[in-house]
Amino acid sequence: MKLFSFWRSLATYRVRIALNLKGLVPEEVIDVNLMKGQQREDAFRKVNPMMAIPALIDGEGPALFESLAIIEYIDEVHPHPPLLPLDPKARARVRGLAQIVAADSHPLIVPRVREYLAHEFKIDEAGILKWAQHWHRTALTALEAHLQDDSTGRYCQGDQITVADICLATQAAGAGFFKIDLAAFPTVKRIVDTCMQNDAFARAHPLKQPGAPASV
Amino acid sequence: MKLFSFWRSLATYRVRIALNLKGLVPEEVIDVNLMKGQQREDAFRKVNPMMAIPALIDGEGPALFESLAIIEYIDEVHPHPPLLPLDPKARARVRGLAQIVAADSHPLIVPRVREYLAHEFKIDEAGILKWAQHWHRTALTALEAHLQDDSTGRYCQGDQITVADICLATQAAGAGFFKIDLAAFPTVKRIVDTCMQNDAFARAHPLKQPGAPASV
Repeated sequence: MKLFSFWRSLATYRVRIALNLKGLVPEEVIDVNLMKGQQREDAFRKVNPMMAIPALIDGEGPALFESLAIIEYIDEVHPHPPLLPLDPKARARVRGLAQIVAADSHPLIVPRVREYLAHEFKIDEAGILKWAQHWHRTALTALEAHLQDDSTGRYCQGDQITVADICLATQAAGAGFFKIDLAAFPTVKRIVDTCMQNDAFARAHPLKQPGAPASV
Repeated sequence: MKLFSFWRSLATYRVRIALNLKGLVPEEVIDVNLMKGQQREDAFRKVNPMMAIPALIDGEGPALFESLAIIEYIDEVHPHPPLLPLDPKARARVRGLAQIVAADSHPLIVPRVREYLAHEFKIDEAGILKWAQHWHRTALTALEAHLQDDSTGRYCQGDQITVADICLATQAAGAGFFKIDLAAFPTVKRIVDTCMQNDAFARAHPLKQPGAPASV
């Protein structure tokens, strides 16, 4: 497997956790520096026309794209340990929680969006930080409310690690980047703290990747 | 089944198509008027804390949320006709294409985001239209590039209708709302035109729903 990655990418963090949970190690990790705009260079545009990471090439290819699609692929090809529960409604809840992160929140704060706000709308850094915090908090508020229900256990869905926990951990890392205190979201915080005791989560963290600063 | 819906919601349009393809008819369709902010009222916030539609209650509940999670649920519980191919890489491609729409593009143009741009950043209508067109076109450009590969057939993935086609049709409807000509995206247009000949797609269209205007 070849993984196209960047230390700060929260979507790639999700895929790294899934690979670690499955005990899979990519033979090659290719750095795509989002801060230098390498995702827009021709070489990478051929890999993923959306100019976003992660992308994953498994064997002959072609490149797989979109973090949740990649994670479900990994889960289908390497089913143990499973990243989704068996019951259809529980699967829908897990996928829904994951999508609150990966669809409703994260796409609003990726570099291309922050760059558009700065260049086209002339929003200053403080305004962009407020924007990022707003969408992060909107999702965290919804997640905290969902996690009050009886399906929640040690993890988002009972006592099994699922793709919802993977997404929750990356949302928490994003909260750190954008200076949001998780204290207002105690169930989110409890589950993320539990996840981060697991080495598969801890060593996938953005700040543990090559090229990352000591803190943000 | 109870479907929480609004005529203009592209995410609900996706679920309507899936239900139609499976021959399922919800006993109740509950209107949540996004233009009047009904998604933020207490009654609906209890159904979906993210304050977004669609939501679907099947039997005892609880409410399922996030369009792609709902569609995969429908597909798992009612497997015929399937909305995903069998091969894992093909499934990943289909889910990836669907997520370009449902994660990378659509979340940027939903009412709550347009309202934030208008109220917090004082962006005028022309600016918001340009924003919506930009993210629509970014996704359409990536989709058109992906659809050049050999996996594409009559539909996005071979000759079988999948969740990628469902998402493509809703992206095309959004392009209509935001005055984007699909002529620049000929493969997208060809596949959407094919889909729209199918009654399951055609009668799910936003402009065919109760409360919709004759055109936008």
